[in-house]
Amino acid sequence: MNETIETILNHRSIRKFTDQKLSDEQIRIIIQAAQQASTSSYVMAYTIIGVTDPEIKKQLAEVSGQFYVEKNGQLFVFCADLSRIQAIQAQDEEKQVMEENLESTEQFIVATVDAALAAQNAAIAAESLGLGICYLGSLRNDIERVSDILQLPDYVYPLFGMAMGYPNHEPEKKPRFPMEVIYHENTYKKHPEQDKYVQDFDATLKEYYSNRSFNVRSDTWTKQMIRKYKVPQRLDVGPFIKGKQMNRK
Amino acid sequence: MNETIETILNHRSIRKFTDQKLSDEQIRIIIQAAQQASTSSYVMAYTIIGVTDPEIKKQLAEVSGQFYVEKNGQLFVFCADLSRIQAIQAQDEEKQVMEENLESTEQFIVATVDAALAAQNAAIAAESLGLGICYLGSLRNDIERVSDILQLPDYVYPLFGMAMGYPNHEPEKKPRFPMEVIYHENTYKKHPEQDKYVQDFDATLKEYYSNRSFNVRSDTWTKQMIRKYKVPQRLDVGPFIKGKQMNRK
Repeated sequence: MNETIETILNHRSIRKFTDQKLSDEQIRIIIQAAQQASTSSYVMAYTIIGVTDPEIKKQLAEVSGQFYVEKNGQLFVFCADLSRIQAIQAQDEEKQVMEENLESTEQFIVATVDAALAAQNAAIAAESLGLGICYLGSLRNDIERVSDILQLPDYVYPLFGMAMGYPNHEPEKKPRFPMEVIYHENTYKKHPEQDKYVQDFDATLKEYYSNRSFNVRSDTWTKQMIRKYKVPQRLDVGPFIKGKQMNRK
Repeated sequence: MNETIETILNHRSIRKFTDQKLSDEQIRIIIQAAQQASTSSYVMAYTIIGVTDPEIKKQLAEVSGQFYVEKNGQLFVFCADLSRIQAIQAQDEEKQVMEENLESTEQFIVATVDAALAAQNAAIAAESLGLGICYLGSLRNDIERVSDILQLPDYVYPLFGMAMGYPNHEPEKKPRFPMEVIYHENTYKKHPEQDKYVQDFDATLKEYYSNRSFNVRSDTWTKQMIRKYKVPQRLDVGPFIKGKQMNRK
């Protein structure tokens, strides 16, 4: 075990921050860390927007419904961004194939993954500095509005936000699936072998929720997933992204 | 600057490894690190396949065309995985909405990002242990074959591989875009302001390629992108994923 692995294993999402803002130097080092992540074929297909304008933060918090989108030490929005490729001057016949590529699901994956890897580097770097973070998928509650607020052009979409700052609470670490569920050897291990592990995990989690120091309740992973997935979830995201000329085929 | 940030900033992709295999204990801690990454709404929508069977490694190396898919200390394949949600027993009317969600682009993003965040934690943890890594998007050169080789069910797709092991070369760090290209304040900064930065970066990169210690050439970022994007890139990935019941709407 070393410092880095301790930092990684100590991760929990932080949702309450002190009033202290990040310094420019902290932001610089965190963005530098983000940029050093691997990038598919050197594409660097992402843009990070640092939001400090109180009015913009307020509007984004309305979309997410989460107060910590406004109240934090720094707010970032990670965008998947193929627009720099699209802007390249090329010959007409090259340009045609380039745009076909840019509209493919493959390039949608490339940009999404590039943004995600950069974000996770930023998260780990921040946590190593004693800061806390929370990913904000909730910005996709109204992805079109977020895109409008941040003035995102075509070939760019807002993937998620990240609230960052000095922690003002110490949440417990939530259990994860046992390694056997997540890690398979050589080939995928199908249900029903897997079902038993999930049932065991439900039992573990029920114990966790009934014993923890706050928000005690009777709950399992399976129940949470049903509650989440039984109502339509952001079904406008797909059509919105197609409107950005991405993930069209 | 601390050890963790030093590890992150020191990243370069490693493509030549010694013969030494990772120990079970190393693999365990790396997977544990992966699992501690943030996950959207606690979904944990990914599966990691550790490939040790020489025949399977050989087949995957054929798909990627990269020798280090076979020759490494450990090979992982990160899969986006919504199948555990799909396997949950629920009432018929709940089930219908659940499947509609699972087929959405939103949930495709959720699973892809979950897998990517886990992978980047694994990468950083490995590098902190003195190991090197290389992401293998090249497995998507024939995504259907990879899925067949690894016996992936519906609602699961192979996102990328990761070769890991003890480095047997020390490549130079490749430059990244200046921070101004990647990091914008409050709103997206459109071209042409951006164009100038990219041109400057092309000049920087030309200098880098002409001065480095191996594979000296005359090249720029723009030229590389045109070479890559002017030929069709994995246009079968989109239809393949739809066939897995994901990213359909």
